[in-house]
Amino acid sequence: MFNQKILLLICDGMADRPLRAFNNRTPLEKAESPNLDFLAKKGVTGLMDPISPGVSPPSDSSHLFIFGYESKDHPGRGVIEALGASIPLNRESVAFRCNIATVERKSNQLIVKDRRAGRIKGKDAEEAAKIVNEIGEIDGVKVKFFHTLEHRGVLVLEGNLSSQVTDMDPQVTNLPVAKAKPKIEAGKDLKAIKTAEVLNKFVLKTFTLLNEASFNVERTSKGLPPGNIILLRGAGKLTFAKSFSEKWGLKSAAVAGAPLYKGLAKFAGMQLHETPGATGLVDTDYKGKINKALDLLGEYDFVFVHIKASDVASHKKDCLLKKKVIEKIDEAVEPLVETKDVLKIITADHTTSSELGIHTGEPVPLLINGLSVRVDKVEKFGEREAANGGLNRIKGLDLMPILISLSNRSIEYGVRVTPEEKLFLDTNYEPLKL
Amino acid sequence: MFNQKILLLICDGMADRPLRAFNNRTPLEKAESPNLDFLAKKGVTGLMDPISPGVSPPSDSSHLFIFGYESKDHPGRGVIEALGASIPLNRESVAFRCNIATVERKSNQLIVKDRRAGRIKGKDAEEAAKIVNEIGEIDGVKVKFFHTLEHRGVLVLEGNLSSQVTDMDPQVTNLPVAKAKPKIEAGKDLKAIKTAEVLNKFVLKTFTLLNEASFNVERTSKGLPPGNIILLRGAGKLTFAKSFSEKWGLKSAAVAGAPLYKGLAKFAGMQLHETPGATGLVDTDYKGKINKALDLLGEYDFVFVHIKASDVASHKKDCLLKKKVIEKIDEAVEPLVETKDVLKIITADHTTSSELGIHTGEPVPLLINGLSVRVDKVEKFGEREAANGGLNRIKGLDLMPILISLSNRSIEYGVRVTPEEKLFLDTNYEPLKL
Repeated sequence: MFNQKILLLICDGMADRPLRAFNNRTPLEKAESPNLDFLAKKGVTGLMDPISPGVSPPSDSSHLFIFGYESKDHPGRGVIEALGASIPLNRESVAFRCNIATVERKSNQLIVKDRRAGRIKGKDAEEAAKIVNEIGEIDGVKVKFFHTLEHRGVLVLEGNLSSQVTDMDPQVTNLPVAKAKPKIEAGKDLKAIKTAEVLNKFVLKTFTLLNEASFNVERTSKGLPPGNIILLRGAGKLTFAKSFSEKWGLKSAAVAGAPLYKGLAKFAGMQLHETPGATGLVDTDYKGKINKALDLLGEYDFVFVHIKASDVASHKKDCLLKKKVIEKIDEAVEPLVETKDVLKIITADHTTSSELGIHTGEPVPLLINGLSVRVDKVEKFGEREAANGGLNRIKGLDLMPILISLSNRSIEYGVRVTPEEKLFLDTNYEPLKL
Repeated sequence: MFNQKILLLICDGMADRPLRAFNNRTPLEKAESPNLDFLAKKGVTGLMDPISPGVSPPSDSSHLFIFGYESKDHPGRGVIEALGASIPLNRESVAFRCNIATVERKSNQLIVKDRRAGRIKGKDAEEAAKIVNEIGEIDGVKVKFFHTLEHRGVLVLEGNLSSQVTDMDPQVTNLPVAKAKPKIEAGKDLKAIKTAEVLNKFVLKTFTLLNEASFNVERTSKGLPPGNIILLRGAGKLTFAKSFSEKWGLKSAAVAGAPLYKGLAKFAGMQLHETPGATGLVDTDYKGKINKALDLLGEYDFVFVHIKASDVASHKKDCLLKKKVIEKIDEAVEPLVETKDVLKIITADHTTSSELGIHTGEPVPLLINGLSVRVDKVEKFGEREAANGGLNRIKGLDLMPILISLSNRSIEYGVRVTPEEKLFLDTNYEPLKL
């Protein structure tokens, strides 16, 4: 009896719907993926609803559920983004996930035209950040904007504030930017009222400053959507739940490129390993990530590898690119075929329709390959093949208990120690002394 | 339309993992079991997670979930064991599940070497019990030890005590015996502090008395592990939840051999029927149990039959014996093939890996045979076949509502009486009077 090491590969938004462009096959079904198919054939497969059936998960919540955290543990998307970008937060900071976006003024409203300002990046995005940071302070509240990857950023407010405020990013185009308000649960909380006021002033100011900025004049002249506003969502304050290692008795590490996923790993207390060439984009170093993960399994019990590229292609509505990304993932996982003593899990965090360019609520395919699994008859890795698999249909929150069991770390319901590792889940444990 | 009678057969720990010794088949898949296969072929099958996916269930909790009870209803394993062994308890007694075990002294700690002292039984186990009962009283608390089956026993404390104390049995070998403490939830409760003190004194005393006992000198000289300590777990006080009959509107009986299962039946208020030859071991009278159950269906609506042997073989890591036990179960269920007017359910309470010798968290196969079921295409009874079954994957708590429906006793959601029998589940009900 030995405790198998665990490698969890999450390919962001890899699951999809049948596409007309692929003669009603999904990108995963259409892709040439002999290694994924082999791992599925020699493993057990199934469907997973990351949150619950029909619920379309944002990536942050989906990963947290898969790691075994519940809604109540979530510190807010802004905090996760800030952790991922190594932005310093204190206990009183309120952090927000931001997009540099494109709006059009229509009478006295600002209509969202492109939530990512044509995936603005590089010098333009840095220029936008610089301009926004000229604001500095509003009503005595310190306002700091941090540009992260492409159109993404983090806003940090410092003052006597609350995270109980609503999002200003309407999350769909052709709707007006929303006014920040105290959440209904916050009632007449003065801190939340103050926070909302500061946010509304801030966002209006970003529009005033950015709309006239010279880099945007240039973008417009080139036919590119201007980055003329900062959209905010996911207010949060820094809180930490039980670490993943403590929760599951697994010494754990993460290999991730995009800030959100680095943030998720840090929130869960996984040791984050940067990989040169891991970009969080479609040009990421797929093989480098998998090889890094295999190296880390020498030292760690559990390694989480995140690949963002499949989601990026989906949001671009580029199913051919998505297929190509999946084929690159397939090439990268080739070394996993030979690692028999590792429990390997390959799945997605949600379905992203590359026809609609948004997340949808269909379950994702899941494969578990390793010693001890009840190998099923499924021979290929795909959304519909997995529906015939031996795992049937599970929820994201079920995955970690299943892996604990399959890796020979079963903890009997109500029992407090793992068999081999003497990890005391009940910190109350103490030996009886003579 | 008539209410079908129900026979629930739980084969303890019958589910397993694919075994190298069986060319990657499980004992159930490997066994010659034409009757089980026939019942599966003419029935509906599926997977069941007794508690929830990946969670490795102890037998007591698993049965309670299958019977429709939740964690909060569980009175503690000690109470179930005491009920099963007909040990008298009063409302203030605290009962513990005990093992006669083997420890080795290492400086001032006692390291668990064999949790079952080589499955000690007979004269040796009785001698151990006699010696332990010389203790009689500790700090004014009456201490009574009852030997039950093989290495198992029950400890009953009588005094002004609490059941809110932690386990002393670490449940794994090579760990020190744990010190009993008040549970965290119990805080500074004086009764819990007192109870823990008495337990720690008791267990140390059992080691002092048993370690030098002449029967152990003899065991050691024969190369057998000495029964030199009593390990305790599962503190409980007598409480009763709603009876199974009241809960489901079924007049119910049980046929079981091992004390724990007799205790579970008594806790649920099922009428317990002893069967001569039902031993709770591999030499049990398989056919006698099934025939007894069929007889009882004349008088009862629901009969629960428990067979322990499949779990005993698994804990012994003897997959050939497990296969043989399953084949005996198969022979014994032959009469069920002909009883068309009875709803027959065959399942396990958990997976026990006969490679590891422990419970694991994989789901168990389930078959339901009888009029009214949606017969599926599954033709054999096995872990992987059942994954393709028409029930898909359910939880233990789902089983009883499914049986109520399939046996034509459906109670519509929100409605409080059964259609045919006018049994009033809600005792608050009173007819309107003119």
